[in-house]
Amino acid sequence: MVRTEILSVGTELLMGQIANTDAQYISKKLPEAGAGVFYHSVVGDNPGRLKECLGAALKRADIVITTGGLGPTQDDLTKQVIADFFGLKLIEDAESRRRIDSFFEKRGMKATPNNYRQSLVPEGSQVLLNDNGTAPGCIISGAGDHEGETVIMLPGPPKELIPMFDKYVMDYYRSRADSKLVSCFIRICGCGESLVETKLMKLIDGQTNPTYATYAKDGMVTVRVTASGNTEEEASELVRYGTDQVAKLIGDDIYSFDDEEPEEALVRMLKERSMTIAFAESLTGGMIAQKLTSVPGASAAVAGGVVSYTDAVKHKLLGVKQKTLTEHTAVSGQCCREMAEGIRAAVGSDIGVAVTGYAGPQVADEKVGQVFIGVATADFTYVKEFSFNGSRDRIRTLTAVNAIDLTRRIMQDPRRFEDRGQ
Amino acid sequence: MVRTEILSVGTELLMGQIANTDAQYISKKLPEAGAGVFYHSVVGDNPGRLKECLGAALKRADIVITTGGLGPTQDDLTKQVIADFFGLKLIEDAESRRRIDSFFEKRGMKATPNNYRQSLVPEGSQVLLNDNGTAPGCIISGAGDHEGETVIMLPGPPKELIPMFDKYVMDYYRSRADSKLVSCFIRICGCGESLVETKLMKLIDGQTNPTYATYAKDGMVTVRVTASGNTEEEASELVRYGTDQVAKLIGDDIYSFDDEEPEEALVRMLKERSMTIAFAESLTGGMIAQKLTSVPGASAAVAGGVVSYTDAVKHKLLGVKQKTLTEHTAVSGQCCREMAEGIRAAVGSDIGVAVTGYAGPQVADEKVGQVFIGVATADFTYVKEFSFNGSRDRIRTLTAVNAIDLTRRIMQDPRRFEDRGQ
Repeated sequence: MVRTEILSVGTELLMGQIANTDAQYISKKLPEAGAGVFYHSVVGDNPGRLKECLGAALKRADIVITTGGLGPTQDDLTKQVIADFFGLKLIEDAESRRRIDSFFEKRGMKATPNNYRQSLVPEGSQVLLNDNGTAPGCIISGAGDHEGETVIMLPGPPKELIPMFDKYVMDYYRSRADSKLVSCFIRICGCGESLVETKLMKLIDGQTNPTYATYAKDGMVTVRVTASGNTEEEASELVRYGTDQVAKLIGDDIYSFDDEEPEEALVRMLKERSMTIAFAESLTGGMIAQKLTSVPGASAAVAGGVVSYTDAVKHKLLGVKQKTLTEHTAVSGQCCREMAEGIRAAVGSDIGVAVTGYAGPQVADEKVGQVFIGVATADFTYVKEFSFNGSRDRIRTLTAVNAIDLTRRIMQDPRRFEDRGQ
Repeated sequence: MVRTEILSVGTELLMGQIANTDAQYISKKLPEAGAGVFYHSVVGDNPGRLKECLGAALKRADIVITTGGLGPTQDDLTKQVIADFFGLKLIEDAESRRRIDSFFEKRGMKATPNNYRQSLVPEGSQVLLNDNGTAPGCIISGAGDHEGETVIMLPGPPKELIPMFDKYVMDYYRSRADSKLVSCFIRICGCGESLVETKLMKLIDGQTNPTYATYAKDGMVTVRVTASGNTEEEASELVRYGTDQVAKLIGDDIYSFDDEEPEEALVRMLKERSMTIAFAESLTGGMIAQKLTSVPGASAAVAGGVVSYTDAVKHKLLGVKQKTLTEHTAVSGQCCREMAEGIRAAVGSDIGVAVTGYAGPQVADEKVGQVFIGVATADFTYVKEFSFNGSRDRIRTLTAVNAIDLTRRIMQDPRRFEDRGQ
């Protein structure tokens, strides 16, 4: 295992202006390439402290990845400090300079000497071209007193760092690994993390190759299956075997074998079937539509939606009967059914999805978390009652995730749901 | 200035399962109490590495704040390691034990010995009661060889850490400060960070007391004004003076003097005037309604909305004329005007807000970022064209933020907008 440490440089992190999502991203990806992360550090734009932290990190790790401090301003000193540390000169990378010129030309501007500073890299280092900004990254492999020490410098902005990391750094790690590693990310909704672990106990306990790891977030669980082999084919074959085992043990709570968000999987399914969907949202206030429409290309599948926060809107735009609102109230299975059928009819979509419930705080405690989710199709309408715990935000998020997941289940196997529900 | 270092403990951070938002929160708040944060570190659930990091941190800092590792499992070793480091025994805190009993009783369960481990604290430390979980925090003030060393231990889950930090830790820092510190957070929309800095140049350059700091996020800027004084009144008076200076220089791009999000400020204004609002969203797909309804108590002000991703929905639910859609297309000032007036009429709200535009990717590059925002009131409808840069996500976010801000401006000073716009 290649021991790695992440050293992030930037006063904006120490001032709390941003969270260290760069370190999170890198930490999440590296195990796929057979590396382990043992420390993160954050230091300000200060040469002395940066040098001290770099020295400490290189004592403990095989590779130190730095993030940030490659920009054009005087604050951006990562490259200079690290080049000095290794006793290397900074030299200009011609391709990076050309890209800086082209970047400014496109905007009808001229680069300043400060901008050109970004094209400097420590001599002998491997340049990592930046497709989304002007500062290249680089990989320094130390020599002499620094034999065996490796530093990978990456830019701080996530939109520059992530593509550069994916394009160059993962390959670099894979090239250092003795064997080929392949991973699959299985996404699960409707089964909690401890239940997933219990079901996979036999696999997790005896794991050697492939290995299994679970993560939980927003009511969903991800299982990573990673295998190593002498060739990529060999590793892939082992991952396929492991994935099959997980599929057998978990069943149809799995909604994706391709690390998709629930909304990505649902938009994909809808597009595959040339179907359209619309949403009637009460407590989620637009969150479900917002999630679906965040998927590029969603416009082919998402017709629209109604946010019906008041009884009047439920009646007027969705056709919920006044009698239903009076006798059952807006938070009821009957209202949810009429909302789902109402949005489907109003918009003319193939599927109508509705949610109504109590997210708090302006309601009696015992009611907070009571939620109805309804799905109307051409053949039937299915409504299910849920009970969620947590803050207002969490109840809204769990409602959105479960509405998307229930729709996916009904599309996959409608017969299981017909003539059931409330 | 009290030098502080944040040491976060948890393998879930090193695996990238979560970002270190605890460190961000603490770093953002401490300057208000006169402290500076110089390093963040993250270490796994490993006693040796934790002890080594703690020692290094205490050499560099006056106070080390640890986050995480206070839970009931064997992994949770922060308290034991730190007590050993200081040569202190762990003793039971009676009130914390009582709270653990009551926590489990409420759920009809019994606490296990592991749960009770959480009520142990290093002898002589100040206990920080946990109102949102079972593990207390604590403050250790070292003696003997450890004279002058202070460690504050906080639980990892943000919903436990944030209230505990706000309730106890800020006061602890204030009590150590020689003087009283008071801050005000001024929120700005519609004026970029560099322009804000230029306008405040005179204040920022000459700053001693109060001091001014700017932060930018999602097209908005925050200016923090902090002053110190012998008494809170004295500091408050200086902050008021500084805030007035900023208000004079920035003008009505300021939407809040109370650190509110734009949606919080808008919901507050609507509730103060007993007015209701509704949204017709195309490219934002529900994001605006979702933001407004995320504010607790929003139901008094938000009537509802329509997500109109297709021309058919724009026509059917919002009453946009077919002729408008054919002659002007859905991304036009005319369509936006009809959407805003349409949602206002359909829902019967006091204000109707509409957005339409191109977020990408399925459109010619030169069109991506073209956005129309319209606000319909009882007296007039105002429509404005915007041009945003960035990713699909960023264009959607900037559209939502600017729609909320434009509505706020029109409510504050309608006469400036009447008979104008497109």
